[in-house]
Amino acid sequence: MDANIKKKVLRLIPYGLYIATSRAEEKIGAGTINWVTQSSFSPPLVVAAIKVDSTLHEVIAASRAFALHVLGKNQKDIATAFFKGAQPEGDTLNGYRFESGTTGAPLLVDPPAWFECRVVDEVLRGDHTIYVGEVVEAGLRREEEPLTLRDTGFFYGG
Amino acid sequence: MDANIKKKVLRLIPYGLYIATSRAEEKIGAGTINWVTQSSFSPPLVVAAIKVDSTLHEVIAASRAFALHVLGKNQKDIATAFFKGAQPEGDTLNGYRFESGTTGAPLLVDPPAWFECRVVDEVLRGDHTIYVGEVVEAGLRREEEPLTLRDTGFFYGG
Repeated sequence: MDANIKKKVLRLIPYGLYIATSRAEEKIGAGTINWVTQSSFSPPLVVAAIKVDSTLHEVIAASRAFALHVLGKNQKDIATAFFKGAQPEGDTLNGYRFESGTTGAPLLVDPPAWFECRVVDEVLRGDHTIYVGEVVEAGLRREEEPLTLRDTGFFYGG
Repeated sequence: MDANIKKKVLRLIPYGLYIATSRAEEKIGAGTINWVTQSSFSPPLVVAAIKVDSTLHEVIAASRAFALHVLGKNQKDIATAFFKGAQPEGDTLNGYRFESGTTGAPLLVDPPAWFECRVVDEVLRGDHTIYVGEVVEAGLRREEEPLTLRDTGFFYGG
């Protein structure tokens, strides 16, 4: 296999951009991710691949739950702010206000939509863990076109 | 959880559109799918959620391999042609010519890019199986912007 061709082809997969958050006791994990897909209608399952050596991974492994926020077309700034992981201060995370969700995960108030998942399965393989989450709560703050990885000019794949 | 809100929120996840194919001995499976994401760089892993009660699922379960074709911006016709599963005739599948890949999976010659995976793990949960495939071969026939689910006006999610 030609590694360069493989990279080019895998980079053709379209993605959205999400802020993932989780809380285990007092510890908060967060990060910008894009490797996400639904995987079942009934029950509603979503797959999120989380970098193994991240604090977000450590917190999800402990809490067995996470929230994903769908970013709006003009929220590249939020995506960028969460590249550095979670920086909580009072009721803000990386400068963005949050409330507490059903699973304990911080729910940012700025993104147009979010959903919370409880981990029901996982595949420990490669440099990311595949977390399979059952959607247990969802919120739509306003109707807005989602930001895509392509919109941002970033790449994460290949 | 409000089922209607959950549906609206999950439908905000952006997707590409793929023709999935597989072959087990003489039996060919194929279908249009969109629940796909990369899940690891090293090794290169891709997750594809495949409807449990489909012939495609049956063939992948037997062959432990599949190919995914990335469709080009103007190939909605191919996506539509594979809603009905695999209809092989000579060296064509649903009217589109194919060659045989490394894993035995039919490789359509029209889509701009494809990759083949060997199944390394799976999660049997819900109405689709989460197949985790290691990318073992990839081909880029030409540079072209990928078709997205949003482009087609179809929905599969929620």
